[in-house]
Amino acid sequence: MSITSSFTSATLCGSLVSPKALGCSNAFPSNHFSNPFESSKLCLTANPKKSIAPVQGIRCHAMQVETREAFTAGKEFQLSDVIEGQQFDREMLSAIFDVALEMEKIEKSSSQSEILKGYLMATLFYEPSTRTRLSFESAMKRLGGEVLTTENAREFSSAAKGETLEDTIRTVEGYSDIIVMRHFESGAAKKAAATANIPVINAGDGPGEHPTQALLDVYTIQSEIGKLDGISVALVGDLANGRTVRSLAYLLAKFKDVKIYLVSPEIVKMKDDIKDYLTLNGVEWEESSDLMEVASKCDVVYQTRIQRERFGERLDLYEAARGKYIVDKALLGVMQKDAVIMHPLPRLDEITADVDADPRAAYFRQAKNGLFIRMALLKLLLVGW
Amino acid sequence: MSITSSFTSATLCGSLVSPKALGCSNAFPSNHFSNPFESSKLCLTANPKKSIAPVQGIRCHAMQVETREAFTAGKEFQLSDVIEGQQFDREMLSAIFDVALEMEKIEKSSSQSEILKGYLMATLFYEPSTRTRLSFESAMKRLGGEVLTTENAREFSSAAKGETLEDTIRTVEGYSDIIVMRHFESGAAKKAAATANIPVINAGDGPGEHPTQALLDVYTIQSEIGKLDGISVALVGDLANGRTVRSLAYLLAKFKDVKIYLVSPEIVKMKDDIKDYLTLNGVEWEESSDLMEVASKCDVVYQTRIQRERFGERLDLYEAARGKYIVDKALLGVMQKDAVIMHPLPRLDEITADVDADPRAAYFRQAKNGLFIRMALLKLLLVGW
Amino acid sequence: MSITSSFTSATLCGSLVSPKALGCSNAFPSNHFSNPFESSKLCLTANPKKSIAPVQGIRCHAMQVETREAFTAGKEFQLSDVIEGQQFDREMLSAIFDVALEMEKIEKSSSQSEILKGYLMATLFYEPSTRTRLSFESAMKRLGGEVLTTENAREFSSAAKGETLEDTIRTVEGYSDIIVMRHFESGAAKKAAATANIPVINAGDGPGEHPTQALLDVYTIQSEIGKLDGISVALVGDLANGRTVRSLAYLLAKFKDVKIYLVSPEIVKMKDDIKDYLTLNGVEWEESSDLMEVASKCDVVYQTRIQRERFGERLDLYEAARGKYIVDKALLGVMQKDAVIMHPLPRLDEITADVDADPRAAYFRQAKNGLFIRMALLKLLLVGW
Repeated sequence: MSITSSFTSATLCGSLVSPKALGCSNAFPSNHFSNPFESSKLCLTANPKKSIAPVQGIRCHAMQVETREAFTAGKEFQLSDVIEGQQFDREMLSAIFDVALEMEKIEKSSSQSEILKGYLMATLFYEPSTRTRLSFESAMKRLGGEVLTTENAREFSSAAKGETLEDTIRTVEGYSDIIVMRHFESGAAKKAAATANIPVINAGDGPGEHPTQALLDVYTIQSEIGKLDGISVALVGDLANGRTVRSLAYLLAKFKDVKIYLVSPEIVKMKDDIKDYLTLNGVEWEESSDLMEVASKCDVVYQTRIQRERFGERLDLYEAARGKYIVDKALLGVMQKDAVIMHPLPRLDEITADVDADPRAAYFRQAKNGLFIRMALLKLLLVGW
Repeated sequence: MSITSSFTSATLCGSLVSPKALGCSNAFPSNHFSNPFESSKLCLTANPKKSIAPVQGIRCHAMQVETREAFTAGKEFQLSDVIEGQQFDREMLSAIFDVALEMEKIEKSSSQSEILKGYLMATLFYEPSTRTRLSFESAMKRLGGEVLTTENAREFSSAAKGETLEDTIRTVEGYSDIIVMRHFESGAAKKAAATANIPVINAGDGPGEHPTQALLDVYTIQSEIGKLDGISVALVGDLANGRTVRSLAYLLAKFKDVKIYLVSPEIVKMKDDIKDYLTLNGVEWEESSDLMEVASKCDVVYQTRIQRERFGERLDLYEAARGKYIVDKALLGVMQKDAVIMHPLPRLDEITADVDADPRAAYFRQAKNGLFIRMALLKLLLVGW
Repeated sequence: MSITSSFTSATLCGSLVSPKALGCSNAFPSNHFSNPFESSKLCLTANPKKSIAPVQGIRCHAMQVETREAFTAGKEFQLSDVIEGQQFDREMLSAIFDVALEMEKIEKSSSQSEILKGYLMATLFYEPSTRTRLSFESAMKRLGGEVLTTENAREFSSAAKGETLEDTIRTVEGYSDIIVMRHFESGAAKKAAATANIPVINAGDGPGEHPTQALLDVYTIQSEIGKLDGISVALVGDLANGRTVRSLAYLLAKFKDVKIYLVSPEIVKMKDDIKDYLTLNGVEWEESSDLMEVASKCDVVYQTRIQRERFGERLDLYEAARGKYIVDKALLGVMQKDAVIMHPLPRLDEITADVDADPRAAYFRQAKNGLFIRMALLKLLLVGW
């Protein structure tokens, strides 16, 4: 595996692993890849407080790209930060999903887990996102960990007194064991991870990445359909602006014989970069304006909200776009018995409320899966396998 | 007991009880009542995670009204949600107060309670109310439970992106074991309880209900005076707008030989619906403009704040109203030795600060009782008796 | 020791100590001091819930000044509130620093401390200060305690409905075991401590005091330089408005043979009150405009931010002032090998980013020390020695 990669936020460490928090300072030969999705690996961060001893000879740092063979022996790779969906290959996804499944059992169990007892997570949110924040905080607390909450982290930021993000991170890492950050600027998570000596999870950075959403989407398909190879998925709604569907398309390309249908109003069509990427990776895709016809053939109908804020003053265009593709009882009528409807939430009326009672309506289960994925990531980042 | 009731937010389940969170799906014969206060019962929600098995044949759901004899055997009724003060009859109040008394002991004890260890409460506040929120969160933590806090839940709401309350509830119930909700719209708590598969506590919904305040007020009278039958209570101040005094009047009507005095500026007099209700329920009441005379005869002087925001631009009327009935040292002079002064707080100058040191000033003890009542409700809703 | 003191917020109790929360009601002869820094002592508050028995004959209350010989037998004085830096003498500082050192070990340890298990801290912040709040909440949680957070406490305040701070405190003390308060008005912490029956820590009150910052600064010097007697310190930047440097100057005056250099733009020079105080207490001080020369002689260069908000519309003056004294690589070049650079953070460009990698850059270690100091204070206030 010596493909060159443009992926820069994760690190492969191999069997010799230096916990990030222990300094990770010696140089390590770097390989640069061009396939941005297949080979990026991550470096272990066991919790700094819990780490036993550093291992010599390896530099583990976000922003560098390093590799070594055989790192996933036993599927147990090392994770130091979660920055972008693309950092995960299919083996990693599979390993994380196994842990998420364990997490489902823990969450349903009657006894309180103490897996993360004594660990402290800081939720550093530069813009509010209650849904995402609650999900992370619930994940941490379900595992016995504790939380420091910051919903108005902009006060820390250049907007307020001019402090750099790096300085803020250096302060907050002194108070916690892991940072979950939401930021308004693309690339902020990568910058934070490069600074921090503790793990950083990107909980969304502006128009950029929202990797835990991407993971929970794929996990939901696996969980609902039972497989990821050979599935057909309709991406519906705002495909131009929705980072969810863009990330999902990227991740689905890691699997075999996937067929993707793109169904959207003309004004918010999927952009060429994703289409080219799918083509390049051998994913069959097709644009369609006939949602009924597509839905009758798909395993997954992934509906999204048309975002009013994208249309500025052209409310006429917004109204036209939002009414065009609706998931309703009629659509349920043509869908296969084992297919599912997904949605990243919040939804307005692009899925009618009478669909909710159908067992194929998977969107609230999907939201719940976000909890399991986040529990799994917190466990992996703080105490490893 | 076959009275008809307009009460709709609680459910009586009888000896066969299906924990709400387990689905509660079979139909159950419904009886409709007309006395809204005497017969509404509540359905058990043991925590979903702790429940052992569903029981067949019973549908337990807020928004339905169902009944069965003998449900309060041993005073141990089942509670699924707390939506309005009126859902409680005197036996229920008595049972809850017994638990609140246990809670006082736990709170004073030197060892940390683990009664609610492993349980997670979401405080979903659509408008800020720091006092109420802190009180609930303290209650949960005093019992060893954990909390997810949302002070800006409006971000979830239609005001922000147009998500329905029902969708928000379906998401949040995936992350927590109980929801404490404050909302700006009357009826919101009932709607949330009808959707949720976990217990919901109404922490105030707009001009509507604030049942935990009503309970703590009655608990305080019981605690301070030692009885609820046969007491005389002066309701003072803004009786037109104060939901506290309205709820208190409703609850006091459940007890025997209660005498209520209404003392308020003309402009904020008690409305006819409550007066009619008192009359209908055999409660003796009397309006008076002589606070001194009334105070000399009462067990409880319940003072309230005249709310400036109700007077719009007529500050002259506000000033006239707020100065009219003040609890001060002179009033203390005529009050009985064992009488008490209550106030829902915050207070401005309707009780002068020099009254605070008098042992009959019960309002800070009353605030503290809010903690015990909320501890009791959380325990009952999550682990039952 | 019978010096007269103007210090009013702390209390000396001697060997007979009545926990504050137990009532502390008997009168105790008061001595008034004039040296505001040498003799003020503090009164024990073991947690009310944990206290065993009150001791007779002593009134312990903030706002009173009382004294008795031999109270620091074994260096174990009693602390009831933390209101101002000046309340601590050098023996107290030394004792607190010993505990802070223990706290460093606990924080680094792999097992979760349960020293404060069952204790509840309320962070009552009338203005946001995320950095300070996170640091206190982390401290509490690192010791196994729990937190109630209020970032918008102004809602409680006169700004909102007109409640007095005293009433708010009386309510919040019913829900928690200790109050950490940030307020916008000078003197607010003292007022709160006088009302509360539980310990109060001042986390900054307006332009007034921020005692935990002062303690962590002195602790950092002790930790980095290894001593406090005989050191030389350069205070640099905005010496007129920075409450940090003012407090530090006060505290340094408690130690022997301290030399202080004042280096600041003319427009924000140190005020005469501090200079007079230093002179009065035998501290050698000197103003200089040559930072290079000063830095070459000092143990500590304490840099501060020039605060733009102090200059109103005179941005020209601000720009001139902020560029005048910069800590950069060149300055590092003349500094002694064992000297350190400190800064209360946030910093803008008054310390250039390339300085961060130098081992003498102590400011992030300084921020971390805030955690240890706050852990120590919470432990001392809640469970004592």
